[in-house]
Amino acid sequence: MPEPLSPGATIGIIGGGQLGRMLSVAAARLGFKTCILEPGGDCPASHVANFHLQAEYDDEQALERFADAVDVITYEFENIPTASLDLLETKCPIRPGREALRVSQDRLTEKKFLRDLGLATAPFAAVSDADGLKAALDEIGAPAILKTRRFGYDGKGQARLKGLEDADSALEAMAGAEAILEGFVDFSHEVSVIAARGPGGEVACFDPGENVHRDGILRTTSVPARLTAGQRTDAVLLAAKILNALDYVGVMGVELFVTNQGLIVNEIAPRVHNSGHWTQNGCTVDQFEQHIRAVAGWPLGDGQRHADVVMENLIGDDMDRVPQLAKEADTALHLYGKAETRPGRKMGHVNRILR
Amino acid sequence: MPEPLSPGATIGIIGGGQLGRMLSVAAARLGFKTCILEPGGDCPASHVANFHLQAEYDDEQALERFADAVDVITYEFENIPTASLDLLETKCPIRPGREALRVSQDRLTEKKFLRDLGLATAPFAAVSDADGLKAALDEIGAPAILKTRRFGYDGKGQARLKGLEDADSALEAMAGAEAILEGFVDFSHEVSVIAARGPGGEVACFDPGENVHRDGILRTTSVPARLTAGQRTDAVLLAAKILNALDYVGVMGVELFVTNQGLIVNEIAPRVHNSGHWTQNGCTVDQFEQHIRAVAGWPLGDGQRHADVVMENLIGDDMDRVPQLAKEADTALHLYGKAETRPGRKMGHVNRILR
Repeated sequence: MPEPLSPGATIGIIGGGQLGRMLSVAAARLGFKTCILEPGGDCPASHVANFHLQAEYDDEQALERFADAVDVITYEFENIPTASLDLLETKCPIRPGREALRVSQDRLTEKKFLRDLGLATAPFAAVSDADGLKAALDEIGAPAILKTRRFGYDGKGQARLKGLEDADSALEAMAGAEAILEGFVDFSHEVSVIAARGPGGEVACFDPGENVHRDGILRTTSVPARLTAGQRTDAVLLAAKILNALDYVGVMGVELFVTNQGLIVNEIAPRVHNSGHWTQNGCTVDQFEQHIRAVAGWPLGDGQRHADVVMENLIGDDMDRVPQLAKEADTALHLYGKAETRPGRKMGHVNRILR
Repeated sequence: MPEPLSPGATIGIIGGGQLGRMLSVAAARLGFKTCILEPGGDCPASHVANFHLQAEYDDEQALERFADAVDVITYEFENIPTASLDLLETKCPIRPGREALRVSQDRLTEKKFLRDLGLATAPFAAVSDADGLKAALDEIGAPAILKTRRFGYDGKGQARLKGLEDADSALEAMAGAEAILEGFVDFSHEVSVIAARGPGGEVACFDPGENVHRDGILRTTSVPARLTAGQRTDAVLLAAKILNALDYVGVMGVELFVTNQGLIVNEIAPRVHNSGHWTQNGCTVDQFEQHIRAVAGWPLGDGQRHADVVMENLIGDDMDRVPQLAKEADTALHLYGKAETRPGRKMGHVNRILR
């Protein structure tokens, strides 16, 4: 096991959005410096980081400088070019490791990985072309949802099919990309487990949160989630199983459907997760510090929750509500410093603390 | 009353130590940018600020650039050169305002201000030379403590006198500076009130904390403090009286001695205060965000405390304890990113949350 990083060490973060921003603040709280690799200027993370290396994710010279400047590399998004990772890992440890990225970068690989672990998933089949889509629909039935295998987020790169009649338009939405057809799951609600694992194999989970989406974007996460004691235990054990199988180091978000037949894994994200933002005001060590602790080889926080919290994302024009939200007692504002408000853009969130 | 600042505005902070660092993080959380004015390189606040203007506090060109770059100016320490403030305030609002700085920069002015408000202080007398010291000792009695009127902190610029026989050495310790002799107060313990006032005159106080010093440096602050309900009310009313008298905008630390004859004001600090660090883990809006809210003209947090907390400063070699402290449940670490550990130097603090 490697030595824990000492305060003063530099943590490299690939991606400069709000997750990188909140990771940087958490790293600073533990005395670490941060270096952000992100092509955009004036990005949210750059406001609170020591260094911002403004370069494309496949700029080899920049990648070398980045790896030389930092003591460990982590990331806020999973779609990092493979060639870049190949280059970086010759120079500096990357946490979470390559296996977690390989699995989660591709929806088909991820589903197979979960199935091979004995976990329940939605029915799925690979789709490369029109014949494949017809065969997949025969196998899985309709309605179903066609998704690109890679590079999807917040509902992008997805198309719903009521039946074979939607096949052409759905395939068109894939724009030639390899896809996966997923059957619908009859679930009552979605929960997620924010789980962490350290380099020594210790695992700590936060209490599962209950998620509500609108237009494919997370709107609220509430803790505690509506779960039986048995489901709660299942959720945590299942998350731990995934982390152990990947020899994972860091925080992972595991989204689960709650059904009458038990918990079904929707997807995993090898990073801090929007549905874990409530921990900032519900736990002594939040998901961001937990991730930094894990990648730095520090002891993990115990994940204990000391308040009920409802996290609400502020999306687009929700920013107009900030003056009113600032007046609410027990409401913690977290804004991301984005210069431009756009519809569907995550601008910040509030954590409402219920005591 | 001025318009509240909108997210995206820039807050200028004079001073780049740990207070500036934690103010910067709080400002970022509300979507503000920050610009630090501080002569030292690699200072704690620069790690988490958007901009660091590295210049002396009396560098006129730098001051002009600073004032032009920001929407409001605040500070983390009170000993800012008067000429610099004169220049800055022609270009940009300074909050808290000049009157608070004028009063608190000089121990004698501060004591007179408090006495004129009808508040109890330690007995005091101005001392300019050996004759004046003898007269002051005659008036106040011994033991007593001689302090420079300006530029003292953490026990520096102070000398204790058991009697007239210590007069020469005490005067020598002042190095020719104007001084004030203060009588000792027979107090059972010290508490402090962290109070905030907005531009509209609204006041919000955090629950008083109980302070323990060692070698002239704050070691711990515990909430709740040992106070009767009546003392608690007195403390808060007294702090509000001070803020109102100064037409104050921002957070102030008010140190009080608890005696059998009631509360005696020790000193005031026109800024966020070490004894308010517990609010980071005890309140939804902590003292740093409260200060930013006040100077930005936003609604103040209500100051409500939701946990008992013991704040402990990590001083010098206390940094060696960090690996052990990181293992403690319900202990929040806050490190300042200082490159060099020195005896007596504040390197960080922990908040232990007692539920």
